[in-house]
Amino acid sequence: MPELRKDPIVGRWVIISTDRAKRPTDFSLEQVKAKGGFCPFCYGNESRTPPEIQAYRPQVPGSPAPQKDTPGWTVRVVPNKFPALGVEGTLNRQADGMFDRMNGIGAHEVIIETPDHNATLTTMSLKRIEDMLWTFRDRILDLKKDKRFKYVLIFKNHGEAAGASLDHSHCQLIALPILPKYVVEELEGAKQYYLYKERCVFCDIVHQEVENGSRIVAENEDFITLAPYAPRFPFETWILPKNHESAFENSSTKMFQNLAIAMKTLLAKAEHVLDNAPYNMVIHTSPVQEPQNDHYHWHIEFMPKLTTTAGFEWGTGFYINPTPPEEAARFLREAEVEIAENG
Amino acid sequence: MPELRKDPIVGRWVIISTDRAKRPTDFSLEQVKAKGGFCPFCYGNESRTPPEIQAYRPQVPGSPAPQKDTPGWTVRVVPNKFPALGVEGTLNRQADGMFDRMNGIGAHEVIIETPDHNATLTTMSLKRIEDMLWTFRDRILDLKKDKRFKYVLIFKNHGEAAGASLDHSHCQLIALPILPKYVVEELEGAKQYYLYKERCVFCDIVHQEVENGSRIVAENEDFITLAPYAPRFPFETWILPKNHESAFENSSTKMFQNLAIAMKTLLAKAEHVLDNAPYNMVIHTSPVQEPQNDHYHWHIEFMPKLTTTAGFEWGTGFYINPTPPEEAARFLREAEVEIAENG
Repeated sequence: MPELRKDPIVGRWVIISTDRAKRPTDFSLEQVKAKGGFCPFCYGNESRTPPEIQAYRPQVPGSPAPQKDTPGWTVRVVPNKFPALGVEGTLNRQADGMFDRMNGIGAHEVIIETPDHNATLTTMSLKRIEDMLWTFRDRILDLKKDKRFKYVLIFKNHGEAAGASLDHSHCQLIALPILPKYVVEELEGAKQYYLYKERCVFCDIVHQEVENGSRIVAENEDFITLAPYAPRFPFETWILPKNHESAFENSSTKMFQNLAIAMKTLLAKAEHVLDNAPYNMVIHTSPVQEPQNDHYHWHIEFMPKLTTTAGFEWGTGFYINPTPPEEAARFLREAEVEIAENG
Repeated sequence: MPELRKDPIVGRWVIISTDRAKRPTDFSLEQVKAKGGFCPFCYGNESRTPPEIQAYRPQVPGSPAPQKDTPGWTVRVVPNKFPALGVEGTLNRQADGMFDRMNGIGAHEVIIETPDHNATLTTMSLKRIEDMLWTFRDRILDLKKDKRFKYVLIFKNHGEAAGASLDHSHCQLIALPILPKYVVEELEGAKQYYLYKERCVFCDIVHQEVENGSRIVAENEDFITLAPYAPRFPFETWILPKNHESAFENSSTKMFQNLAIAMKTLLAKAEHVLDNAPYNMVIHTSPVQEPQNDHYHWHIEFMPKLTTTAGFEWGTGFYINPTPPEEAARFLREAEVEIAENG
């Protein structure tokens, strides 16, 4: 059973894997990845993943009902084969001398975005991306019924340098019994701002950035895509709902349609400008048990991995960004991309 | 002039370089480094760095006084040729709509640890490492006279994957007009603990860890080297003074002697166990204008760069560590290394 442990100085919870503990020699092995060949996420290999949690399977009229763990799906969710957390058991929060620990209870799932091994979010149809977003919502609504879970973290690693271990396009979901530190900081910061101004800080940002224009990348009826004022990384970009909404899962059909357009547009622009750089993309949303509030505003953060100097940054929390966001936004804004309905 | 900008949600200051702004195509170029050949940190090339700020030059009795920017030094400090911050000017704190910015005023220096191009902290003599530590102290005491500076960040990137752009062993120093976010979090966390317990959290950790033993890597009269209870990274290791001391620059001669031993021991053990992995090492100390307090305890954090999945971690503040600190500490503790006086 993995363990959650809390740093007593800054209050950060980390997952410590205890089952498959890495020995020093394991780290060099990890670099060597099997390329090409067998893919557990392709049609016909459904038995090579843990049994599916859910899938979208178009019903063909007159045909027999589709079977679980068989081909025919368009989006498929399975447990991570090497989960960082275990779903069974009790949290068993306890002291460990002056320290705090609990059992590593949580869910770790993989959302396989498409059966097409070579498709990416920039080549998939908008409808497929919408299906992926609906799948995220389904999973959040299902997992929040389990009151042990306080947060559902959904993220995508694209490219090996960004941590993706399989080529076939997929996202990951981790349901957690604690709030990740960065989430706590955002929630607290947004609450402080709200207490002082009686306005949502993200709403203020959207308003000011639309007026200013220099950091805007793209815009549609429901979403604004922008380079933040103080980005940590070159070409860091956020997608925010224009109207206040604290949780991703409260989105309407129209919002998911427009979010699919916003995501595909940003990723296509970034692919074009940054030569298909690896990236991480994270949904920042409210804790699942408190999905409605006035101060927090869900959004997506996109971080291409362009620099190799991250070590210093994660060690200090201090970031040196060589690309002004106004420049990054201009490059992305001016990149012309075609976002056809059928990708 | 670079700019310091503050994120309005979490309050993080970042440096935005505006002079040598990176265009998208610059990032792939950055990977290609000139290897071998000319080194600006070797004897005879002193004119190829900016003029030196200070250097230790052993005086030979009867010889003429040593000249600046000539060979003969043992440790040499020069301004960074491509500084992240500029030293001249006023901070000019101002609002930018709802945002906050100031001029990127600060110092960015390079401490060349040795004239020997091939030496490292694991091969240098203890005396040389002590000289490096005294040099850090000299620079802190000099820079703190400038009341614009609130923090002096000293760190080392070892190996290209950890962000080192030159092979010749060196550290970097950045003097800042703000406190880095991670420092604020540690100071605040330590203060909260102190308010509640009336004890320093780091002193409590030292006490408990010595008693428990399972996370101890090494120990000498003044310093304890340990794997923290909730490490973010595999083989993350801290070196802490055993007795309460809030600032690095308050250390005594004996402490610097024992710190040199602790650092060389840890780095030799890590080199042996982790096959000379790249690493970052950061001195965590009190803000330079408040170097005495009861709640904060300076220390050194060592973070080898073993995993490629950092992208997700810096994007979320959420860490999955595959190596329990007890295992990491055991490997390092059991590694037998020779720390001869003349390395």
